[in-house]
Amino acid sequence: MKSLTEYLTFTVPERVGFVNITPTLEDLVRRSGITEGLLLCNAMHITASVFVNDDERGLHEDFKRWLERLAPFDASQQTYAHNRTGEDNADAHLKRQVMGREVVIVVTAERLDFGPWEQVFDGRRPKRVRVKIIGE
Amino acid sequence: MKSLTEYLTFTVPERVGFVNITPTLEDLVRRSGITEGLLLCNAMHITASVFVNDDERGLHEDFKRWLERLAPFDASQQTYAHNRTGEDNADAHLKRQVMGREVVIVVTAERLDFGPWEQVFDGRRPKRVRVKIIGE
Amino acid sequence: MKSLTEYLTFTVPERVGFVNITPTLEDLVRRSGITEGLLLCNAMHITASVFVNDDERGLHEDFKRWLERLAPFDASQQTYAHNRTGEDNADAHLKRQVMGREVVIVVTAERLDFGPWEQVFDGRRPKRVRVKIIGE
Repeated sequence: MKSLTEYLTFTVPERVGFVNITPTLEDLVRRSGITEGLLLCNAMHITASVFVNDDERGLHEDFKRWLERLAPFDASQQTYAHNRTGEDNADAHLKRQVMGREVVIVVTAERLDFGPWEQVFDGRRPKRVRVKIIGE
Repeated sequence: MKSLTEYLTFTVPERVGFVNITPTLEDLVRRSGITEGLLLCNAMHITASVFVNDDERGLHEDFKRWLERLAPFDASQQTYAHNRTGEDNADAHLKRQVMGREVVIVVTAERLDFGPWEQVFDGRRPKRVRVKIIGE
Repeated sequence: MKSLTEYLTFTVPERVGFVNITPTLEDLVRRSGITEGLLLCNAMHITASVFVNDDERGLHEDFKRWLERLAPFDASQQTYAHNRTGEDNADAHLKRQVMGREVVIVVTAERLDFGPWEQVFDGRRPKRVRVKIIGE
Protein backbone atom coordinates (compact mmCIF):
# COMPACT_ATOMS: atom_id res chain seq x y z
CA MET A 1 0.00 0.00 0.00
CA LYS A 2 1.21 3.49 -0.85
CA SER A 3 0.12 6.64 0.95
CA LEU A 4 0.64 10.40 0.76
CA THR A 5 -0.29 12.96 3.43
CA GLU A 6 -0.29 16.69 2.72
CA TYR A 7 -1.45 19.85 4.49
CA LEU A 8 -2.80 22.81 2.55
CA THR A 9 -3.18 26.32 3.97
CA PHE A 10 -5.59 28.93 2.65
CA THR A 11 -6.09 32.61 3.42
CA VAL A 12 -9.62 33.78 2.76
CA PRO A 13 -10.05 37.47 3.69
CA GLU A 14 -13.84 37.46 4.26
CA ARG A 15 -15.72 35.82 7.13
CA VAL A 16 -17.17 33.36 4.62
CA GLY A 17 -15.27 32.43 1.47
CA PHE A 18 -14.85 29.65 -1.05
CA VAL A 19 -11.64 28.20 -2.49
CA ASN A 20 -11.63 25.68 -5.32
CA ILE A 21 -9.03 23.09 -4.32
CA THR A 22 -9.73 20.57 -7.09
CA PRO A 23 -6.55 21.38 -9.13
CA THR A 24 -4.42 21.01 -5.98
CA LEU A 25 -5.96 17.62 -5.23
CA GLU A 26 -5.32 16.49 -8.82
CA ASP A 27 -1.66 17.50 -8.49
CA LEU A 28 -1.36 15.51 -5.25
CA VAL A 29 -2.84 12.40 -6.88
CA ARG A 30 -0.23 12.66 -9.67
CA ARG A 31 2.58 13.13 -7.13
CA SER A 32 1.38 10.15 -5.05
CA GLY A 33 1.78 7.72 -7.95
CA ILE A 34 -1.39 5.99 -6.71
CA THR A 35 -3.66 4.68 -9.47
CA GLU A 36 -6.32 2.82 -7.47
CA GLY A 37 -7.38 4.08 -4.05
CA LEU A 38 -9.23 6.62 -1.96
CA LEU A 39 -8.51 10.28 -1.24
CA LEU A 40 -9.69 11.83 2.03
CA CYS A 41 -9.76 15.63 2.27
CA ASN A 42 -10.97 17.24 5.49
CA ALA A 43 -11.08 20.67 7.07
CA MET A 44 -8.75 20.85 10.09
CA HIS A 45 -10.81 23.56 11.78
CA ILE A 46 -14.24 22.94 13.21
CA THR A 47 -15.75 26.08 11.71
CA ALA A 48 -14.66 25.13 8.17
CA SER A 49 -15.96 22.66 5.60
CA VAL A 50 -14.73 20.73 2.59
CA PHE A 51 -17.49 19.79 0.16
CA VAL A 52 -18.19 18.96 -3.48
CA ASN A 53 -20.56 21.20 -5.42
CA ASP A 54 -20.66 23.61 -8.37
CA ASP A 55 -17.98 26.35 -8.68
CA GLU A 56 -20.53 29.02 -9.64
CA ARG A 57 -20.54 32.51 -8.15
CA GLY A 58 -24.32 32.71 -7.90
CA LEU A 59 -24.53 29.39 -6.07
CA HIS A 60 -21.90 30.59 -3.59
CA GLU A 61 -24.08 33.63 -2.83
CA ASP A 62 -27.03 31.27 -2.37
CA PHE A 63 -25.03 29.11 0.04
CA LYS A 64 -24.05 32.15 2.13
CA ARG A 65 -27.61 33.45 2.37
CA TRP A 66 -29.05 30.01 3.05
CA LEU A 67 -26.56 29.16 5.81
CA GLU A 68 -27.28 32.57 7.36
CA ARG A 69 -30.98 31.68 7.40
CA LEU A 70 -30.43 28.20 8.89
CA ALA A 71 -27.86 29.31 11.50
CA PRO A 72 -27.70 33.13 11.75
CA PHE A 73 -24.60 34.90 13.00
CA ASP A 74 -25.27 36.36 16.45
CA ALA A 75 -22.43 37.26 18.81
CA SER A 76 -24.71 37.40 21.86
CA GLN A 77 -24.53 34.84 24.67
CA GLN A 78 -28.34 34.75 24.88
CA THR A 79 -28.74 33.29 21.39
CA TYR A 80 -25.81 30.86 21.54
CA ALA A 81 -24.51 29.37 24.81
CA HIS A 82 -21.16 28.66 23.13
CA ASN A 83 -20.48 32.40 22.94
CA ARG A 84 -20.19 32.46 26.78
CA THR A 85 -16.68 31.06 26.22
CA GLY A 86 -15.68 34.47 24.83
CA GLU A 87 -16.03 33.38 21.21
CA ASP A 88 -18.58 34.83 18.79
CA ASN A 89 -18.65 32.00 16.27
CA ALA A 90 -21.24 29.51 17.55
CA ASP A 91 -23.13 29.97 14.27
CA ALA A 92 -20.06 28.84 12.31
CA HIS A 93 -19.97 25.52 14.22
CA LEU A 94 -23.59 24.90 13.17
CA LYS A 95 -22.99 25.96 9.55
CA ARG A 96 -20.10 23.52 9.35
CA GLN A 97 -22.44 20.64 10.29
CA VAL A 98 -24.70 21.46 7.32
CA MET A 99 -21.83 21.72 4.82
CA GLY A 100 -19.81 18.81 6.20
CA ARG A 101 -16.24 18.23 7.37
CA GLU A 102 -14.75 15.95 4.72
CA VAL A 103 -15.00 14.37 1.31
CA VAL A 104 -13.77 10.92 0.28
CA ILE A 105 -13.03 10.69 -3.43
CA VAL A 106 -12.26 7.76 -5.70
CA VAL A 107 -8.79 7.64 -7.26
CA THR A 108 -8.86 5.57 -10.46
CA ALA A 109 -6.18 5.18 -13.14
CA GLU A 110 -4.07 8.01 -11.69
CA ARG A 111 -6.77 10.68 -11.67
CA LEU A 112 -9.60 11.95 -9.49
CA ASP A 113 -12.78 10.33 -10.61
CA PHE A 114 -15.23 13.25 -10.51
CA GLY A 115 -18.60 13.45 -12.17
CA PRO A 116 -19.48 16.49 -14.30
CA TRP A 117 -19.45 19.93 -12.60
CA GLU A 118 -18.16 18.62 -9.31
CA GLN A 119 -15.70 20.80 -7.42
CA VAL A 120 -14.24 20.78 -3.90
CA PHE A 121 -14.22 23.92 -1.75
CA ASP A 122 -13.14 25.04 1.64
CA GLY A 123 -15.33 27.79 3.04
CA ARG A 124 -14.90 30.18 5.99
CA ARG A 125 -11.76 32.12 7.01
CA PRO A 126 -8.04 31.23 6.73
CA LYS A 127 -7.85 27.50 7.37
CA ARG A 128 -5.84 24.36 6.91
CA VAL A 129 -6.99 21.31 5.00
CA ARG A 130 -5.60 17.79 5.34
CA VAL A 131 -5.33 15.44 2.38
CA LYS A 132 -4.55 11.72 2.59
CA ILE A 133 -4.41 9.34 -0.36
CA ILE A 134 -4.08 5.57 0.14
CA GLY A 135 -3.97 2.80 -2.43
CA GLU A 136 -1.66 1.24 -4.97
CA MET B 1 -4.60 -4.54 -2.09
CA LYS B 2 -7.62 -5.37 -4.23
CA SER B 3 -10.06 -2.85 -5.63
CA LEU B 4 -13.27 -2.73 -7.64
CA THR B 5 -14.84 0.33 -9.29
CA GLU B 6 -18.36 0.32 -10.65
CA TYR B 7 -20.84 2.87 -11.99
CA LEU B 8 -24.57 2.51 -11.42
CA THR B 9 -27.24 4.40 -13.36
CA PHE B 10 -30.75 5.08 -12.08
CA THR B 11 -33.83 6.53 -13.71
CA VAL B 12 -36.18 8.15 -11.23
CA PRO B 13 -39.21 9.70 -13.00
CA GLU B 14 -40.15 12.29 -10.35
CA ARG B 15 -38.21 15.41 -9.44
CA VAL B 16 -37.41 13.83 -6.09
CA GLY B 17 -37.19 10.06 -5.72
CA PHE B 18 -35.54 7.36 -3.65
CA VAL B 19 -33.84 4.17 -4.81
CA ASN B 20 -32.67 1.48 -2.40
CA ILE B 21 -29.22 0.45 -3.68
CA THR B 22 -28.24 -1.80 -0.74
CA PRO B 23 -28.76 -5.12 -2.64
CA THR B 24 -26.62 -3.80 -5.53
CA LEU B 25 -23.83 -2.84 -3.14
CA GLU B 26 -23.98 -6.27 -1.51
CA ASP B 27 -23.62 -7.92 -4.93
CA LEU B 28 -20.60 -5.74 -5.72
CA VAL B 29 -18.91 -6.70 -2.44
CA ARG B 30 -19.38 -10.39 -3.31
CA ARG B 31 -18.00 -9.84 -6.83
CA SER B 32 -14.99 -7.90 -5.49
CA GLY B 33 -13.78 -10.85 -3.39
CA ILE B 34 -12.76 -8.33 -0.73
CA THR B 35 -13.29 -9.49 2.87
CA GLU B 36 -11.74 -6.63 4.84
CA GLY B 37 -11.91 -3.09 3.55
CA LEU B 38 -13.93 0.03 2.88
CA LEU B 39 -16.66 0.77 0.34
CA LEU B 40 -17.18 4.32 -0.93
CA CYS B 41 -20.44 5.11 -2.69
CA ASN B 42 -21.05 8.65 -3.94
CA ALA B 43 -23.51 10.51 -6.12
CA MET B 44 -21.85 11.67 -9.35
CA HIS B 45 -24.23 14.63 -9.75
CA ILE B 46 -24.21 17.61 -7.47
CA THR B 47 -27.96 17.70 -7.06
CA ALA B 48 -28.11 14.06 -5.89
CA SER B 49 -27.29 12.34 -2.60
CA VAL B 50 -26.31 8.93 -1.33
CA PHE B 51 -27.22 8.36 2.31
CA VAL B 52 -28.05 5.67 4.87
CA ASN B 53 -31.45 5.76 6.54
CA ASP B 54 -34.69 3.79 6.85
CA ASP B 55 -36.39 2.42 3.68
CA GLU B 56 -39.85 3.46 4.88
CA ARG B 57 -42.37 5.20 2.63
CA GLY B 58 -43.61 7.57 5.34
CA LEU B 59 -40.08 8.68 6.18
CA HIS B 60 -39.41 9.40 2.50
CA GLU B 61 -42.47 11.70 2.47
CA ASP B 62 -41.13 13.38 5.60
CA PHE B 63 -37.72 13.89 3.95
CA LYS B 64 -39.33 15.49 0.88
CA ARG B 65 -41.47 17.87 2.93
CA TRP B 66 -38.63 18.72 5.30
CA LEU B 67 -36.13 19.45 2.52
CA GLU B 68 -38.74 21.62 0.83
CA ARG B 69 -39.08 23.61 4.07
CA LEU B 70 -35.30 23.99 4.55
CA ALA B 71 -34.54 24.83 0.89
CA PRO B 72 -37.76 25.50 -1.06
CA PHE B 73 -37.92 25.04 -4.83
CA ASP B 74 -38.14 28.45 -6.52
CA ALA B 75 -37.19 28.91 -10.18
CA SER B 76 -36.89 32.72 -9.84
CA GLN B 77 -33.56 34.51 -10.09
CA GLN B 78 -34.54 36.78 -7.21
CA THR B 79 -34.67 33.97 -4.68
CA TYR B 80 -31.58 32.08 -5.90
CA ALA B 81 -28.68 33.79 -7.70
CA HIS B 82 -27.67 30.42 -9.20
CA ASN B 83 -30.81 30.46 -11.33
CA ARG B 84 -29.37 33.43 -13.31
CA THR B 85 -27.29 30.79 -15.13
CA GLY B 86 -30.49 29.60 -16.83
CA GLU B 87 -30.96 26.69 -14.43
CA ASP B 88 -33.90 26.37 -12.04
CA ASN B 89 -32.37 23.92 -9.57
CA ALA B 90 -30.51 26.06 -7.03
CA ASP B 91 -32.67 24.53 -4.30
CA ALA B 92 -31.46 21.04 -5.28
CA HIS B 93 -27.83 22.06 -4.70
CA LEU B 94 -28.77 23.14 -1.16
CA LYS B 95 -30.85 20.02 -0.47
CA ARG B 96 -27.91 17.84 -1.49
CA GLN B 97 -25.74 19.51 1.20
CA VAL B 98 -28.24 18.49 3.88
CA MET B 99 -28.53 14.88 2.68
CA GLY B 100 -24.83 14.42 1.84
CA ARG B 101 -22.84 13.27 -1.18
CA GLU B 102 -21.34 9.96 -0.09
CA VAL B 103 -21.28 7.09 2.36
CA VAL B 104 -18.27 5.05 3.41
CA ILE B 105 -19.20 1.59 4.62
CA VAL B 106 -17.22 -1.12 6.38
CA VAL B 107 -16.64 -4.37 4.47
CA THR B 108 -16.02 -7.23 6.91
CA ALA B 109 -15.86 -10.97 6.21
CA GLU B 110 -17.17 -10.58 2.66
CA ARG B 111 -20.31 -8.65 3.52
CA LEU B 112 -21.50 -5.09 4.13
CA ASP B 113 -21.44 -4.43 7.82
CA PHE B 114 -24.73 -2.54 8.33
CA GLY B 115 -26.57 -1.97 11.57
CA PRO B 116 -30.26 -2.81 11.83
CA TRP B 117 -32.67 -0.97 9.46
CA GLU B 118 -29.90 0.84 7.62
CA GLN B 119 -30.39 1.34 3.90
CA VAL B 120 -28.63 3.37 1.20
CA PHE B 121 -30.58 5.58 -1.18
CA ASP B 122 -30.01 7.92 -4.05
CA GLY B 123 -32.54 10.73 -4.25
CA ARG B 124 -33.41 13.22 -7.02
CA ARG B 125 -33.78 12.60 -10.80
CA PRO B 126 -31.97 10.14 -13.13
CA LYS B 127 -28.41 9.99 -11.85
CA ARG B 128 -25.22 7.98 -11.75
CA VAL B 129 -23.60 6.64 -8.62
CA ARG B 130 -19.97 5.60 -8.25
CA VAL B 131 -18.91 2.68 -6.06
CA LYS B 132 -15.32 1.87 -5.08
CA ILE B 133 -14.27 -0.96 -2.78
CA ILE B 134 -10.68 -1.30 -1.57
CA GLY B 135 -9.16 -3.88 0.77
CA GLU B 136 -8.01 -7.45 0.81
CA MET C 1 -2.78 -4.33 4.43
CA LYS C 2 -3.73 -4.48 8.11
CA SER C 3 -7.21 -3.86 9.45
CA LEU C 4 -9.02 -3.70 12.78
CA THR C 5 -12.79 -3.69 13.33
CA GLU C 6 -14.35 -2.83 16.67
CA TYR C 7 -17.84 -2.14 18.02
CA LEU C 8 -18.42 0.37 20.80
CA THR C 9 -21.61 0.57 22.87
CA PHE C 10 -22.79 3.68 24.70
CA THR C 11 -25.59 4.30 27.15
CA VAL C 12 -26.81 7.88 27.11
CA PRO C 13 -29.73 8.37 29.52
CA GLU C 14 -31.30 11.44 27.88
CA ARG C 15 -33.15 11.54 24.56
CA VAL C 16 -30.28 13.59 23.15
CA GLY C 17 -26.78 13.21 24.53
CA PHE C 18 -23.13 13.58 23.56
CA VAL C 19 -20.24 11.21 24.22
CA ASN C 20 -16.63 12.12 23.45
CA ILE C 21 -15.16 8.99 21.84
CA THR C 22 -11.80 10.49 20.78
CA PRO C 23 -9.74 8.73 23.53
CA THR C 24 -11.32 5.38 22.60
CA LEU C 25 -10.45 5.90 18.93
CA GLU C 26 -6.88 6.81 19.87
CA ASP C 27 -6.58 3.56 21.88
CA LEU C 28 -7.88 1.56 18.92
CA VAL C 29 -5.31 3.13 16.58
CA ARG C 30 -2.54 2.13 19.01
CA ARG C 31 -3.90 -1.43 19.28
CA SER C 32 -4.19 -1.74 15.48
CA GLY C 33 -0.47 -1.14 14.95
CA ILE C 34 -1.40 0.82 11.82
CA THR C 35 0.79 3.87 11.15
CA GLU C 36 -0.53 5.03 7.76
CA GLY C 37 -4.17 4.60 6.87
CA LEU C 38 -7.78 5.66 7.31
CA LEU C 39 -10.18 5.23 10.22
CA LEU C 40 -13.93 5.04 9.57
CA CYS C 41 -16.25 5.54 12.53
CA ASN C 42 -20.01 5.39 11.95
CA ALA C 43 -23.19 5.28 13.98
CA MET C 44 -24.89 1.88 13.62
CA HIS C 45 -28.36 3.32 14.31
CA ILE C 46 -30.14 5.62 11.90
CA THR C 47 -31.20 8.08 14.57
CA ALA C 48 -27.62 8.58 15.80
CA SER C 49 -24.65 10.53 14.47
CA VAL C 50 -20.88 10.52 14.70
CA PHE C 51 -19.31 13.91 14.03
CA VAL C 52 -16.26 16.05 14.72
CA ASN C 53 -16.74 19.33 16.55
CA ASP C 54 -15.86 21.12 19.81
CA ASP C 55 -16.34 19.30 23.16
CA GLU C 56 -17.88 22.37 24.81
CA ARG C 57 -20.99 22.21 26.98
CA GLY C 58 -22.46 25.47 25.63
CA LEU C 59 -22.06 24.32 22.05
CA HIS C 60 -23.84 21.07 22.85
CA GLU C 61 -26.78 23.08 24.18
CA ASP C 62 -26.71 25.13 20.97
CA PHE C 63 -26.74 21.95 18.86
CA LYS C 64 -29.76 20.59 20.76
CA ARG C 65 -31.75 23.82 20.41
CA TRP C 66 -30.77 24.25 16.77
CA LEU C 67 -31.68 20.69 15.76
CA GLU C 68 -35.01 21.12 17.57
CA ARG C 69 -35.65 24.23 15.47
CA LEU C 70 -34.67 22.56 12.16
CA ALA C 71 -36.54 19.28 12.84
CA PRO C 72 -38.82 19.59 15.89
CA PHE C 73 -39.85 16.54 17.92
CA ASP C 74 -43.54 15.80 17.29
CA ALA C 75 -45.00 12.36 18.01
CA SER C 76 -48.11 13.02 15.89
CA GLN C 77 -48.78 11.22 12.61
CA GLN C 78 -50.03 14.45 11.06
CA THR C 79 -46.65 16.18 11.29
CA TYR C 80 -44.53 13.17 10.34
CA ALA C 81 -45.80 10.33 8.13
CA HIS C 82 -43.08 8.03 9.54
CA ASN C 83 -44.85 8.06 12.91
CA ARG C 84 -47.74 6.08 11.35
CA THR C 85 -45.46 3.04 11.75
CA GLY C 86 -46.01 3.28 15.51
CA GLU C 87 -42.72 5.07 16.13
CA ASP C 88 -42.45 8.62 17.46
CA ASN C 89 -38.94 9.41 16.27
CA ALA C 90 -39.30 10.75 12.72
CA ASP C 91 -37.61 13.96 13.87
CA ALA C 92 -34.55 11.97 14.96
CA HIS C 93 -34.11 10.56 11.44
CA LEU C 94 -34.05 14.12 10.08
CA LYS C 95 -31.68 15.40 12.79
CA ARG C 96 -29.27 12.58 11.97
CA GLN C 97 -29.09 13.81 8.33
CA VAL C 98 -27.95 17.25 9.51
CA MET C 99 -25.31 15.90 11.91
CA GLY C 100 -24.10 13.07 9.65
CA ARG C 101 -23.59 9.32 9.96
CA GLU C 102 -19.83 8.88 9.86
CA VAL C 103 -16.38 10.41 10.01
CA VAL C 104 -13.30 9.28 8.13
CA ILE C 105 -10.08 10.26 9.89
CA VAL C 106 -6.45 10.20 8.79
CA VAL C 107 -4.13 7.83 10.68
CA THR C 108 -0.52 9.04 10.40
CA ALA C 109 2.56 7.84 12.27
CA GLU C 110 0.52 5.74 14.70
CA ARG C 111 -1.82 8.48 15.88
CA LEU C 112 -5.07 10.16 14.89
CA ASP C 113 -4.27 13.23 12.88
CA PHE C 114 -6.73 15.77 14.33
CA GLY C 115 -6.61 19.52 14.00
CA PRO C 116 -6.91 21.71 17.09
CA TRP C 117 -10.12 21.42 19.17
CA GLU C 118 -11.53 18.61 17.08
CA GLN C 119 -13.49 15.92 18.91
CA VAL C 120 -15.71 13.04 17.86
CA PHE C 121 -19.13 12.52 19.42
CA ASP C 122 -22.07 10.20 19.19
CA GLY C 123 -25.34 11.88 19.99
CA ARG C 124 -28.84 10.52 20.75
CA ARG C 125 -29.80 7.58 23.02
CA PRO C 126 -27.96 4.31 23.81
CA LYS C 127 -26.30 3.30 20.55
CA ARG C 128 -23.56 1.28 18.97
CA VAL C 129 -20.73 2.71 16.92
CA ARG C 130 -18.59 0.81 14.41
CA VAL C 131 -14.90 1.58 13.94
CA LYS C 132 -12.73 0.25 11.11
CA ILE C 133 -9.08 1.11 10.56
CA ILE C 134 -7.26 0.02 7.39
CA GLY C 135 -3.67 0.69 6.33
CA GLU C 136 -0.15 -0.46 7.06
